[in-house]
Amino acid sequence: MFEFASDNSYLMPAHFGGAPLSAWTYAEVTTVGVSYRTDGDALSAYVPQCFEITEPVLEIGYALNRGVEWMAGAGYNLVAVNVPVRYRHEAQTLTGSFALVVWESNATPILGGREQTGIPKIFADVADLQLLGDRMVGHVSFDGSTFLRVDARKTGELAAGELAELNQQQRQMNWFGWRYIPRVGGPGAALSHPTLYPIEYTFNAAWRAEATVDWTLLDWEQNPTQAHIIAALGRLPVREPVGMVTVGSQVIRVDAAKELTW
Amino acid sequence: MFEFASDNSYLMPAHFGGAPLSAWTYAEVTTVGVSYRTDGDALSAYVPQCFEITEPVLEIGYALNRGVEWMAGAGYNLVAVNVPVRYRHEAQTLTGSFALVVWESNATPILGGREQTGIPKIFADVADLQLLGDRMVGHVSFDGSTFLRVDARKTGELAAGELAELNQQQRQMNWFGWRYIPRVGGPGAALSHPTLYPIEYTFNAAWRAEATVDWTLLDWEQNPTQAHIIAALGRLPVREPVGMVTVGSQVIRVDAAKELTW
Amino acid sequence: MFEFASDNSYLMPAHFGGAPLSAWTYAEVTTVGVSYRTDGDALSAYVPQCFEITEPVLEIGYALNRGVEWMAGAGYNLVAVNVPVRYRHEAQTLTGSFALVVWESNATPILGGREQTGIPKIFADVADLQLLGDRMVGHVSFDGSTFLRVDARKTGELAAGELAELNQQQRQMNWFGWRYIPRVGGPGAALSHPTLYPIEYTFNAAWRAEATVDWTLLDWEQNPTQAHIIAALGRLPVREPVGMVTVGSQVIRVDAAKELTW
Amino acid sequence: MFEFASDNSYLMPAHFGGAPLSAWTYAEVTTVGVSYRTDGDALSAYVPQCFEITEPVLEIGYALNRGVEWMAGAGYNLVAVNVPVRYRHEAQTLTGSFALVVWESNATPILGGREQTGIPKIFADVADLQLLGDRMVGHVSFDGSTFLRVDARKTGELAAGELAELNQQQRQMNWFGWRYIPRVGGPGAALSHPTLYPIEYTFNAAWRAEATVDWTLLDWEQNPTQAHIIAALGRLPVREPVGMVTVGSQVIRVDAAKELTW
Repeated sequence: MFEFASDNSYLMPAHFGGAPLSAWTYAEVTTVGVSYRTDGDALSAYVPQCFEITEPVLEIGYALNRGVEWMAGAGYNLVAVNVPVRYRHEAQTLTGSFALVVWESNATPILGGREQTGIPKIFADVADLQLLGDRMVGHVSFDGSTFLRVDARKTGELAAGELAELNQQQRQMNWFGWRYIPRVGGPGAALSHPTLYPIEYTFNAAWRAEATVDWTLLDWEQNPTQAHIIAALGRLPVREPVGMVTVGSQVIRVDAAKELTW
Repeated sequence: MFEFASDNSYLMPAHFGGAPLSAWTYAEVTTVGVSYRTDGDALSAYVPQCFEITEPVLEIGYALNRGVEWMAGAGYNLVAVNVPVRYRHEAQTLTGSFALVVWESNATPILGGREQTGIPKIFADVADLQLLGDRMVGHVSFDGSTFLRVDARKTGELAAGELAELNQQQRQMNWFGWRYIPRVGGPGAALSHPTLYPIEYTFNAAWRAEATVDWTLLDWEQNPTQAHIIAALGRLPVREPVGMVTVGSQVIRVDAAKELTW
Repeated sequence: MFEFASDNSYLMPAHFGGAPLSAWTYAEVTTVGVSYRTDGDALSAYVPQCFEITEPVLEIGYALNRGVEWMAGAGYNLVAVNVPVRYRHEAQTLTGSFALVVWESNATPILGGREQTGIPKIFADVADLQLLGDRMVGHVSFDGSTFLRVDARKTGELAAGELAELNQQQRQMNWFGWRYIPRVGGPGAALSHPTLYPIEYTFNAAWRAEATVDWTLLDWEQNPTQAHIIAALGRLPVREPVGMVTVGSQVIRVDAAKELTW
Repeated sequence: MFEFASDNSYLMPAHFGGAPLSAWTYAEVTTVGVSYRTDGDALSAYVPQCFEITEPVLEIGYALNRGVEWMAGAGYNLVAVNVPVRYRHEAQTLTGSFALVVWESNATPILGGREQTGIPKIFADVADLQLLGDRMVGHVSFDGSTFLRVDARKTGELAAGELAELNQQQRQMNWFGWRYIPRVGGPGAALSHPTLYPIEYTFNAAWRAEATVDWTLLDWEQNPTQAHIIAALGRLPVREPVGMVTVGSQVIRVDAAKELTW
């Protein structure tokens, strides 16, 4: 008869076995990041109260993940939409990025990300980047309808000292989420709490970039379960976008994630 | 500032809004079902104690879902692996099918199925059925490696009276799951309980079928997160398989799902 | 040593063997057809001179093909853009439809269609139809960018006599193409001639429909090899669209196709 | 009315316009190559008579192509199966590789490759490489059934002098094909001749590798149009496989391709 092992973590289906939580390496990660200022009041509607927005900024992180250890070296693409925040609870203060939504091109990392760490991952076709000389162009679509396009043109590589500084800053990124699991068969939550999910980055090279972000709103027939999310984000103004391209690796610290109080 | 509405249900990302739970129609559902006897002792290792196995049988249900109302009329394919069980708790007795695992070809229904109703859905490429005269052949693969093949040859259509009886029996199917959400950052569960998820079937036609089921075990490099599930199921003996093909519609009663005590 | 058999037809790679040409059944075909009047002068730019346009009409045929015999019962989707024409050469007159372009969701039928019969098939994601009550909605995209949307609402089923008449008319459809194979390494053609490809339809049911067609032009970065085709078609006016939905089967007469003189 | 421009090359559909042939850059190409000795007599059955096999060797080239200029910077994967040959006709002698078959993961390059240059490209899911430490693992599947697996473990990087030599050797590779276009509606060929398609490689780095190749034969229901090709190749013995991994770029000389006499 099946018994849960006391030192294991499980995901559905749970009754075939689990494993201890672990840290996992992503051997090759290419990112196009675009940050832009937006309307802080409008933005605050989507950020839970325990997080203070430190700057009215949206951080779009478009990533090609390759050599993913827990996926036997396979890969997937994602685009994260984050907000820089400060978490404060009693004496504790943490600075990091709150994940408003993350689109991923593969169901498997979506499941663990949501259930183990509260990152609001949902599915979309996050295309491989188009490489056009110094430009890198990404687009995100659902069932044939593109709703986000990111376009970055590299303007200069970071010097060694700048790269070292970037590595120092991002050595451990505090990624915040909000894990919400509904009650079965009725309104309300079975679980609803903030989470902390540390990601450790190593950048081998980085480039400043001129960048643009274009959102296209979709209707219900094009994207019945996400149109409201795209509308909320796509209506926020895009001001003074700043781009950066990086190549490197990362370690996801599923083992060091935490439920936060609020 | 965001506030949860008291009559809504939410899924991550929660802070863009929710909606009341509802029942949803699947307008066109084609299924190939294959049931076979297996080793009851081995099978019981994967079935939680609150469920009593009524017959040592695996029910493979391969379904092409089309006209899915909540997906704006789009579709997806799935293969469910169920066991006939009786749930008993105090005075309550319910007869139905316990979902060991469900593979689906689309991430979106996987998320709600897991989080709202505890059905252990995971991703695989569940191919459209190959139609070869009276045969219908389905295969399920992950990243280019097939692990399940279902082959049914229709041998005779159900007469009107038989079809009416089938409709009477399956008018409301009690689908049981086990919702398991892990603790963040360590071993153990945040949620762990059985669930009941009623599905209402209407069959427009049905056929008896000669059927076979073939499991192929995969190694870690072929399917790093599911190989142990496929191995557990694929090692169970396949005895006296019996097939059935149906076309019809269904209503999924997300609104009538229940957390069960145990 | 390899030798070509005198009664076989070959496709690349030719040196692994060929087979005689044959007729092939498509067991289950669902189509949404929309015909609309357009500008005949503009249209004539895309129709070779040996074909006389009988009506300044574009016929959009959106088809879900299932149970395709030569593909071992698998399926694929396509959307054909045809023009009603009369072919005349010396004493011979044939009435049928000239294929301006056909988008298909699967590479395999594209190859044979181009090389064996001169049908100008190219790749796109031709989605399964969304079923929304009486509506059937299809969309065609390339790499996440939709360029064609077809929307039909069934308004009434054809009576038995009407259906019989439809079957009589379409029993054998003359599908015309233009096979063009370029010279290697320079301008000009190695092969350039009209073709006739007979398709035999059997309709089990059909419905009149209110229908709309929407073209969206794409830029070079969205669809580098097809943007000019979409622009040419998308700029033609859409007047008085008339819809029809059918379910049935078809036989493709690859064995009865012909090179035409001009 | 449409007229063909005398300096353009066209592909179907031809009547929307063409363009002069050109050379195109592939900005980022990662390859895993595995060469192995096999049975020369058996191999010769698949190589046309005008080519002399210089060594009884199969060269498997697994490539991830990114930054493909003519695809607006997008990418695709391929696996080529080549044989080293010498072409001789009258006074002319050319040394290069004859393409037995090339599987590609994208329909668009397949069409041009076949029709413009006679390379026998057909479709398969050529997976992105799995990166497992020093290992790179690729697999090629059709509709969920893997038929080729390539596994290479890097054992040492080429020194600068060795790399320079490799670049010198492969600066221009003579890729040979056989363009075969059938007659319409009957046996025999409309076009049947050898082709030469020059590819220019630049390697930025290269590694020696221990490598293995595994073929899995498929049946007709798994791969109805390619099973005979896989069987022919998969039955050839695999002896003394030698691996190499490279990263670099390439230029495809569609403009310099040639029809060869025989």
